[in-house]
Amino acid sequence: MNNLEQKIKELEQRVDLIETNQPDDKLSVVVFSGDLDKTLAAFIIATGASAMYDEVVMFFTFWGTAVLRDLKKKIKKEDIMAAMFGKMLPKGSSKLGLSKMHMAGIGTAMMKSLMKKKGVMSLEELMKIAGEAGVKIVICEMSMNLMGFKLEEMIDYPNLSLGGVAKFLQEAASSKVSLFI
Amino acid sequence: MNNLEQKIKELEQRVDLIETNQPDDKLSVVVFSGDLDKTLAAFIIATGASAMYDEVVMFFTFWGTAVLRDLKKKIKKEDIMAAMFGKMLPKGSSKLGLSKMHMAGIGTAMMKSLMKKKGVMSLEELMKIAGEAGVKIVICEMSMNLMGFKLEEMIDYPNLSLGGVAKFLQEAASSKVSLFI
Amino acid sequence: MNNLEQKIKELEQRVDLIETNQPDDKLSVVVFSGDLDKTLAAFIIATGASAMYDEVVMFFTFWGTAVLRDLKKKIKKEDIMAAMFGKMLPKGSSKLGLSKMHMAGIGTAMMKSLMKKKGVMSLEELMKIAGEAGVKIVICEMSMNLMGFKLEEMIDYPNLSLGGVAKFLQEAASSKVSLFI
Repeated sequence: MNNLEQKIKELEQRVDLIETNQPDDKLSVVVFSGDLDKTLAAFIIATGASAMYDEVVMFFTFWGTAVLRDLKKKIKKEDIMAAMFGKMLPKGSSKLGLSKMHMAGIGTAMMKSLMKKKGVMSLEELMKIAGEAGVKIVICEMSMNLMGFKLEEMIDYPNLSLGGVAKFLQEAASSKVSLFI
Repeated sequence: MNNLEQKIKELEQRVDLIETNQPDDKLSVVVFSGDLDKTLAAFIIATGASAMYDEVVMFFTFWGTAVLRDLKKKIKKEDIMAAMFGKMLPKGSSKLGLSKMHMAGIGTAMMKSLMKKKGVMSLEELMKIAGEAGVKIVICEMSMNLMGFKLEEMIDYPNLSLGGVAKFLQEAASSKVSLFI
Repeated sequence: MNNLEQKIKELEQRVDLIETNQPDDKLSVVVFSGDLDKTLAAFIIATGASAMYDEVVMFFTFWGTAVLRDLKKKIKKEDIMAAMFGKMLPKGSSKLGLSKMHMAGIGTAMMKSLMKKKGVMSLEELMKIAGEAGVKIVICEMSMNLMGFKLEEMIDYPNLSLGGVAKFLQEAASSKVSLFI
């Protein structure tokens, strides 16, 4: 009898540990590229997942950080090289180009026109829906620093924070699905 | 005694739930890029996984959908912009270029020649093997719609279907490994 | 009583199996691209993970293999096409370009200068730290063969080996997180 109780206790401890280590019903996405097409794919996956999974976290890093700049927010940059980089990079979602067939903007304009015609949501609409659906956005601090971007020039978004690679790795470790886009 | 039975019952329910939530021995791959090199990588991983995992599902989206067009199948497009887009995108696996060093086709031809010489399977051979090995292909409906592609112009493949982002997210949630290529 | 013992035994077997199938605290990364920015991202994630996870494995394939060439090691190539390919591809980490805004090397030089100024580690420093932290590197045998690279021309790295797609799929199947970069 004591023996059985002991065995059950051991099993309970093992099951406790398994439950603790189980991933959450969560999607983690790294948005590295600042291309229109890849960013669209990231937000289509993220908004889709917000309806099916418990939690969705998007990490914007490198070129991806430029996607989140707000065209209307103007800030002064002291650092000359950061100012130059900031000018060369697309200022926000409406200025992105396709990773292929951009063709000096013609291909990108064609794609946007096609999307409208076919009833596919624009990137701006997807970002709005993502915000409303509780999709979390974390912007890579190191990339912001590198590109010379400041939090004040980023879009207004319900659930936006700064974070590092450790934040991504922590979320990914407890996610069912992790993608690098 | 009752107490022990109760504890065992509770444990059984917890273990049931854990088993239900366990991922399948499955690989889900998003094939976003229509580049020769990345599509090759996707099929090398997919055919490799078909021998080691229980199930492999490939989701073709955006530029990736152009990979699956059949050069020999001709269909009339009513939509002018869709027809233009269709003409500009590579028609099938034999027309893809490298993501790097394409060099107006010279680099791509060199790579194909090198692959042949070194005994690396061509994309067409890999696709055939994937089909025979039971690798499932899902083509993104929204992308097909956007690019103006029709199911009738796609390759003959044993296990091909149309699907949306929800289908990918459902498969990924129950996959051991998910990749975005 | 016998009945309870039987039930406990069955539960133990089910929990054994669940534990066996649990992923390790491990990250698997495919480094496909030979771009400076993406390779930096891969090593920032890998070195970050080496401090948080039990194990990190990086698989270098296709263009990624060129990253690992050692500028100082010279070997003779018999195969003319392999020799040509070898000349055209970047020779090691210091010769990589950005995936965007490379601008004939100006953008890449600007980025490297910015990284230095902002105290972001260079790729070479990250690779050194990765090696010291026990991050494993596996180079894709097929890609080496295709590009005409030899193991003798690769960098000195504490934990470097050759492997195929099966090695990646095996590691990924037992990893918490798998990424394709």
